[in-house]
Amino acid sequence: MTATETTPALDPDAIRVLLDGEHRAIRDEVRAGLADAAYERPIPAPPDDEYRELVLEWARELAADGRAGLGYPQEFGGQDNVGGSIAAFETLAYGDLSLLVKCGVQFGLFGGAVLHLGTREHHERYLPQIATFELPGCFAMTETGHGSNVQAVGTTATYDPAAEEFVIHTPDEESTKDYIGNAAAHGRLAAVFAQLIVGGGESRGVHCLLVPIRDERGRACEGVTLSDCGPKLGLNGVDNGRIAFDHVRVPREALLDRYAQVSADGVYFSPIENPDRRFFTMLGTLIQGRVSVCGASISATKVAQTIAIRHGERRRQFGPPGSDHEVPLLSYRAHQRRLLPALAKTYALHFAQQELIAELHRAFTVDDYPERDQRELETRAAGLKALATWHAVSTIQECRECCGGAGYLAENRFAELRADTDVFTTFEGDNTILLQLVAKSLLTDFRDEFGELNQIETVGFVVGQVYETVVERSAVRELVQRLTDDLVPGREDELDLLDRAYQLDLLRWREEHMISGVARRLKRGIDSGEDPFDVFNDCQDHVIATARAHVEREVLEAFSRAVEGCDDEGLRAGLDRLCNLFALAAIESDRAWFQEHGRISSTRAKGVTRAVNALCAEVRPHAGALVDGFAIPDTVLHAPIGQPERDPGTGSR
Amino acid sequence: MTATETTPALDPDAIRVLLDGEHRAIRDEVRAGLADAAYERPIPAPPDDEYRELVLEWARELAADGRAGLGYPQEFGGQDNVGGSIAAFETLAYGDLSLLVKCGVQFGLFGGAVLHLGTREHHERYLPQIATFELPGCFAMTETGHGSNVQAVGTTATYDPAAEEFVIHTPDEESTKDYIGNAAAHGRLAAVFAQLIVGGGESRGVHCLLVPIRDERGRACEGVTLSDCGPKLGLNGVDNGRIAFDHVRVPREALLDRYAQVSADGVYFSPIENPDRRFFTMLGTLIQGRVSVCGASISATKVAQTIAIRHGERRRQFGPPGSDHEVPLLSYRAHQRRLLPALAKTYALHFAQQELIAELHRAFTVDDYPERDQRELETRAAGLKALATWHAVSTIQECRECCGGAGYLAENRFAELRADTDVFTTFEGDNTILLQLVAKSLLTDFRDEFGELNQIETVGFVVGQVYETVVERSAVRELVQRLTDDLVPGREDELDLLDRAYQLDLLRWREEHMISGVARRLKRGIDSGEDPFDVFNDCQDHVIATARAHVEREVLEAFSRAVEGCDDEGLRAGLDRLCNLFALAAIESDRAWFQEHGRISSTRAKGVTRAVNALCAEVRPHAGALVDGFAIPDTVLHAPIGQPERDPGTGSR
Repeated sequence: MTATETTPALDPDAIRVLLDGEHRAIRDEVRAGLADAAYERPIPAPPDDEYRELVLEWARELAADGRAGLGYPQEFGGQDNVGGSIAAFETLAYGDLSLLVKCGVQFGLFGGAVLHLGTREHHERYLPQIATFELPGCFAMTETGHGSNVQAVGTTATYDPAAEEFVIHTPDEESTKDYIGNAAAHGRLAAVFAQLIVGGGESRGVHCLLVPIRDERGRACEGVTLSDCGPKLGLNGVDNGRIAFDHVRVPREALLDRYAQVSADGVYFSPIENPDRRFFTMLGTLIQGRVSVCGASISATKVAQTIAIRHGERRRQFGPPGSDHEVPLLSYRAHQRRLLPALAKTYALHFAQQELIAELHRAFTVDDYPERDQRELETRAAGLKALATWHAVSTIQECRECCGGAGYLAENRFAELRADTDVFTTFEGDNTILLQLVAKSLLTDFRDEFGELNQIETVGFVVGQVYETVVERSAVRELVQRLTDDLVPGREDELDLLDRAYQLDLLRWREEHMISGVARRLKRGIDSGEDPFDVFNDCQDHVIATARAHVEREVLEAFSRAVEGCDDEGLRAGLDRLCNLFALAAIESDRAWFQEHGRISSTRAKGVTRAVNALCAEVRPHAGALVDGFAIPDTVLHAPIGQPERDPGTGSR
Repeated sequence: MTATETTPALDPDAIRVLLDGEHRAIRDEVRAGLADAAYERPIPAPPDDEYRELVLEWARELAADGRAGLGYPQEFGGQDNVGGSIAAFETLAYGDLSLLVKCGVQFGLFGGAVLHLGTREHHERYLPQIATFELPGCFAMTETGHGSNVQAVGTTATYDPAAEEFVIHTPDEESTKDYIGNAAAHGRLAAVFAQLIVGGGESRGVHCLLVPIRDERGRACEGVTLSDCGPKLGLNGVDNGRIAFDHVRVPREALLDRYAQVSADGVYFSPIENPDRRFFTMLGTLIQGRVSVCGASISATKVAQTIAIRHGERRRQFGPPGSDHEVPLLSYRAHQRRLLPALAKTYALHFAQQELIAELHRAFTVDDYPERDQRELETRAAGLKALATWHAVSTIQECRECCGGAGYLAENRFAELRADTDVFTTFEGDNTILLQLVAKSLLTDFRDEFGELNQIETVGFVVGQVYETVVERSAVRELVQRLTDDLVPGREDELDLLDRAYQLDLLRWREEHMISGVARRLKRGIDSGEDPFDVFNDCQDHVIATARAHVEREVLEAFSRAVEGCDDEGLRAGLDRLCNLFALAAIESDRAWFQEHGRISSTRAKGVTRAVNALCAEVRPHAGALVDGFAIPDTVLHAPIGQPERDPGTGSR
């Protein structure tokens, strides 16, 4: 501890500027708006029906400021600023998460479906009303029996050329739209995903249509059955409900027809011939939802960490024998271990998320964004969303426990943070499924065929088409690294654990090794005549681990670039230390694998643990500044135990 | 998967009988009572003040059945059945956990303080009224500024010989009694832990006194300030509050005087001379609270697992290409991995808990229970409580995620299970602190001095007194094992991963190695003149890991004894498989350590992972029976997605 006291203090304002990045002005505006309006769950929480109305009111106030349509085209009252709209959403996530999700459903999911799947007529007619929340809507994709496997939804939209109408129908209970935000109380129009049937019989696959569900007085439309999902683990300010359709008729124009049209006389046309590819192209445009949830998870984690780290600096327990002087919790190694590697990871995820936002913004603004880049972007969003939402859940829990009894009181925010973020791990794509999608992209090398294969078909595809590329490519890389790196006897000692290039090499090598390992296993299974399902299932944990390894490597690269790009020398040194902590904690947590694959020795593995301990001690004096840099307004943070130190004299040591 | 289909099915009733053990009748009675009364949180949850009254009413109903005083002496209306009372408490934990904690506070903590720290007069006067809940009371130990470090409480009890009274006083805000169950609304008498001051000046250490806080009409007594902790993350049916005293006078008889008396003229006497030892002796009698929380955590975990596993058997998603036949979630390896090792661990903890209950019962019933056994028992309770409560939190979370959107609905129980069990990790002893206590016992070899040393004094003690014993003892054992076990080249392959003796050897070796490692590090630090606090702090994570290793070894031994003791051959085989899964999953999760310490090769480490996968597939067909064996009545389980299969024809494959 003594050696580190000479490290110059970090400046929270400089951190804030760096973290806020290019959307700083928007973030500050949202911060100020949150602090003024103090949108926050009253304590005790009001009954759900009141809370829902309160959230609707807040959302309308917010929409009145014009910030809701930030990402919409200028001609419909927006600012064409997709990146800015996600930055605003992320910042809004410092406050009440029901408000956030209510906005996400309305402006992001529902509005996004109209914007991205519809055409000019839909935009003109609906976007302005959506942006003001005048027309509350639903994104009706998930069904009771069809969650992750969206392609299997049972709702049908059958074209009736005589009436020039579509007939929307729910054939069975399993096909009821379920968990739909805005459905239980407020939604009037729903973007409904249904099997499109034109010209008798066969489905053209899943398409999206706008279907009125309530009239202006809030009564269910004819043929529409609405019900309430009831109380949830969290997010009870959002009215999730169920929707069932009994032969509900909508005009031909109800079809959001950017990727497929049906002529008046019932001829189907789509520029994308392959139905699977069409489906995934449609889904791809909705990527914004995942990026938004990812950012919101990171923000919620920052709230929890700000509270827990300030508490850990202030709260004292026990001390040296014979002394009345108790020691701050954060000076204990066990406490540092519980909080600081997670803080480093939040920073890492933050930088990866900012790069993701920038790329998403590019995808929506440049002409002819390449399809391969689109695939990569979708893959990054899926992977980062999985890691960030799991990080939120585990970190908020750890923060709560680190605050003991005080952490259990609702006033200190962990109750709502935990409850509200929990569903992020399974909505907008279940994390386990998302990681399998990531692995599929890696195995098929982001080819156009992405999205056209289900998991098991991937097995055959990998075996048939990319096996050699994947395996040979990584075999060569591994070989080169083995020759130059620490596996050459006697060289390991010379390699510095704090060398970024070494850390990156380890994560890259792991990823390559895992990808080629999975490809080999799939090929071996198929070659020996096993059932493709069994072959796939046998590798499933390996597949998921591969995806994790890939995302973690990407996250380290993003953090590393952020450190390099920082031109304030003192701050750069501080971030570099934090990046080391992130990298080595990641390596430490998978050091079993690195040993199993002969990539690090057992001596080195123990060295990694020692290095993480040392880095925790080095980061500890800066922990306060690192959370201050998140710049969560005191009134928004709200937790009594998380307020900044009032008397700087009692300081952080 | 095919190989396992021949394994005979397990009989849920046989499992139930085995799990229920010697307290089967009591457990069945509580099950029936729960099912009849259907004590359960209404959905939506009522406002906290209504919920609190409802819980009080339930608790009184329950007390009217006479089950509350099961563990009290027969002469005061009890049955002298400590083991049975914990079995009843565990079973009650299948239902509403606010009711459980309300009962725990009243009958266990408050009643337990009167029973174990008081003497005959206190028993006669209070126990009968406590057992009927006629006299609601508090266990007022924790203070705002003094949580884990209870010896540092600031409340004082100063004897005034002129009036023959104690003066109870809260000197500052940090010394306010905080988070106290029953304090916000219902409590009338509080067992208050305070520094006892007799004859001027110096404190005799922490003692417990009975102090009235409310009169019969619910008004605060003079000098007593009561306030409400407000809404909490969970357990909102319990009225936690704060208590402050302003020179409140109580008669001399208010002191619970089993371990220390004060004569009328103000002479202090205690049969235990050392004040630290006296304090820990007093705390030791309250061990029942930890054992109860431990059992409750295991029960709550069983509820979550019953729901998630039944859902995983029924819910189908995706399937082989070109097939309409979707596959049950539980047939996917990733899903098995998420649920089945945790199920094996619940069984393991269950058996360890049953042994703990039996030993606790013995401690309270035999005369002259040896002090060393008492230390060991306290250590076991502390360690098992930490592991079981963390297991509950992580498992309930995993179960919730495995149920997707349905898992997020309050009706499916995870919301309350997560929220209510959360505080178990930090109350009745913070888990991190408890594990440090466990390590201290190991390092001091359960000597009498246990409890008289704070963590840092332990450093000096270990160095001064037990270093040689601890290190030499384990060095010899390690040497013997190294000579006979798998480190001898070429022998590893011959050792069967499924051999229980081999599994136990690994866990024992790890524990010994860690204990002697910590002892060596402490000695080296002190010998080189470092500050004892720094020496201790530098080892803190190692100390905690040591305690975990110790508890895990004990748990495996308990599971192993249960398997051996099972005389139904089919069931024994099933349990043996489950015990293998528990043991190998434990080894797998720490395989980095085993490799680092040369105890298993990297080849073997990979083999452990393969074995865990294979065991998951083997356990999968029996998962339904294994949760049916918990025998949670349907109405108590309550979750729609957790109800047993209605049509056995659609079965579990």
